[in-house]
Amino acid sequence: MTVTISIDAMGGDHGVSVTVAAAIDLLKEHPNCRILLVGQLAAIHHALKKIPHDLRDHVTVVEATEVVAMDDSVEVALRKKKNSSMRIAIELVKDGQADAIVSAGNTGALMAISRYLLKTLAGIDRPAIATRMPNQKGTGTTVLDLGANSDCEAFHLLQFAQMADVMVRVIDDKDKPTIGLLNIGEEVIKGNEVVKQAGVLLRNSSLNFRGNVEGNDIFKGTTDIVVCDGFVGNVALKTSEGLASMISQMIKEEFGRSLFTKFLSFLALPILLRFRKRVDHRRYNGAMLLGLRGLVIKSHGSADRYAFYVALTRAYEAANNRMVEKIATAFDLIEKQKLTEVVKTVPNSGSENTLALQSTPPNATT
Amino acid sequence: MTVTISIDAMGGDHGVSVTVAAAIDLLKEHPNCRILLVGQLAAIHHALKKIPHDLRDHVTVVEATEVVAMDDSVEVALRKKKNSSMRIAIELVKDGQADAIVSAGNTGALMAISRYLLKTLAGIDRPAIATRMPNQKGTGTTVLDLGANSDCEAFHLLQFAQMADVMVRVIDDKDKPTIGLLNIGEEVIKGNEVVKQAGVLLRNSSLNFRGNVEGNDIFKGTTDIVVCDGFVGNVALKTSEGLASMISQMIKEEFGRSLFTKFLSFLALPILLRFRKRVDHRRYNGAMLLGLRGLVIKSHGSADRYAFYVALTRAYEAANNRMVEKIATAFDLIEKQKLTEVVKTVPNSGSENTLALQSTPPNATT
Repeated sequence: MTVTISIDAMGGDHGVSVTVAAAIDLLKEHPNCRILLVGQLAAIHHALKKIPHDLRDHVTVVEATEVVAMDDSVEVALRKKKNSSMRIAIELVKDGQADAIVSAGNTGALMAISRYLLKTLAGIDRPAIATRMPNQKGTGTTVLDLGANSDCEAFHLLQFAQMADVMVRVIDDKDKPTIGLLNIGEEVIKGNEVVKQAGVLLRNSSLNFRGNVEGNDIFKGTTDIVVCDGFVGNVALKTSEGLASMISQMIKEEFGRSLFTKFLSFLALPILLRFRKRVDHRRYNGAMLLGLRGLVIKSHGSADRYAFYVALTRAYEAANNRMVEKIATAFDLIEKQKLTEVVKTVPNSGSENTLALQSTPPNATT
Repeated sequence: MTVTISIDAMGGDHGVSVTVAAAIDLLKEHPNCRILLVGQLAAIHHALKKIPHDLRDHVTVVEATEVVAMDDSVEVALRKKKNSSMRIAIELVKDGQADAIVSAGNTGALMAISRYLLKTLAGIDRPAIATRMPNQKGTGTTVLDLGANSDCEAFHLLQFAQMADVMVRVIDDKDKPTIGLLNIGEEVIKGNEVVKQAGVLLRNSSLNFRGNVEGNDIFKGTTDIVVCDGFVGNVALKTSEGLASMISQMIKEEFGRSLFTKFLSFLALPILLRFRKRVDHRRYNGAMLLGLRGLVIKSHGSADRYAFYVALTRAYEAANNRMVEKIATAFDLIEKQKLTEVVKTVPNSGSENTLALQSTPPNATT
């Protein structure tokens, strides 16, 4: 099967110099891949000069005259820039011409336009942003939501867990991924009201729920998936980025103090490089916008060629494994189960019924 | 002036072997200090054998027959263990026999007992836990709340900022400390509802408020103080601890791979030690329970002798600088200003008035 990926070629801090180069790297790896490069023709064609002759047929250039800026409001991106590279790249997924779209552009705009054009899957109230963060086990912990939903209800957190469950099963090929609820203590009574309620829903679900986890469990790899609202997830992600950046700065300073320490850093270069590779955040680039009727991957805005290539690879794998269809199927099943449960519990409408209804969002059927 | 510190000698993972040893270290540094060691007599006297003769007079041992365990519920700690070392150590502050209390025990219990015995200062609705985290500037960023309040309203965040403002002025001797509101973007419209409202209150306050900051700003040192609710703060803290621990584990592994890398780590020891010192979390041990009618300092449960000594030093400095009195005075002023503002705005009770009233908690006068 051919996998077609549309790329917002203008997105991110470096634009075509990164996006087109990374696309070529992806094509070299995956012969069954096609790329649609969306953006300003002159810039893309210029960047495409370096493409090997045999790969040129795998690329189609699609014109887009506008670009969503990093500081454009969602309003401007959605209403005023209808010819943006981001929007046209997403439309290609909507029209069935591409299996996934990757953008390093403005996250808020990407989420808003994707949601507007692609819509959410049946049974999903809100899309969420999920990414993998490194852990001590070397497996990567999938964390969501990372900023799409600042105010969440308990059933949103349940849905995030359900979506991530499918994502990890599909992409990491894990049978029953373990799930933790990000909290401020392991005990059931800990946390704010929403998290306590989410704990109840998760314990009553068919997911492999392991209870509350704390911030440090993300890096321990205690569970395959960590669920939280978008505010908390975003703070955890940015705090980690900040600390990693401070530590790497300090390592540089300490090894740069004198001629002797510089000489040592030269000797220790293989160690330092291997260490850097292990904590290299670029290896984890490519966050998924989960819950949409189409595959949307967000790359870090500052991604370089390698990081953007990683995001493209994630898009390729998810599309190749038909992730969106599998999430849709999973939610169809959940909806059917819910209906069965409601029917079953109607005669004796006790506390069980209340619980079953709690897990249904107000507008689950829309 | 003499500074008297009462110590919950039994608290923490290591009990008297750490708490008493660290107390002796503090006495060596500060001749005007007195220590009240609260706990089981035999254990404390045994640990006191190593105290230099001239310092023995600076120490009083106070008996407490019970110990609050790390996994005791707040209920048990508060209602059942009335003779715990933690409780008696706090009572010494209440009775004016000590200027501060330091414990490495159960955080929830420490907060509950402190709040029950000492009460909150006038104008303060809820106490908060504040600590310093390292930053690239080397100055330390004061972050609060770190877990005392999972569900916060906007005016709680304002109060946290007001308390931290006094704390940093007193302890770090900064004139007008800068304050950031932890959020998921710099723009005013970002964040959940509580944070957005808190932004309005902070902008209308007399504090040196610099707007929204993100997780990475904690380690950049963008502002002296970062304000957030206890859920978010706890996640940020634990996530940082987890990442730091993963990175230090990886550095160890990379330098331990072969004889050659071990030899290199021997050569690089001064660099590695200096690096470790810079990121050493022990240097930041000692969180303040702010907003109480007494000085309560929480040490990390796993603190070693040096870390507990640092927490004691923070207690000493805060007591020596009369921090609690200064916070009380600041809140008296704030309350008086509020009254004046309300009187001023009563004739034309428009939107301004609503804003002034918003910053007043429902039970501010109790």
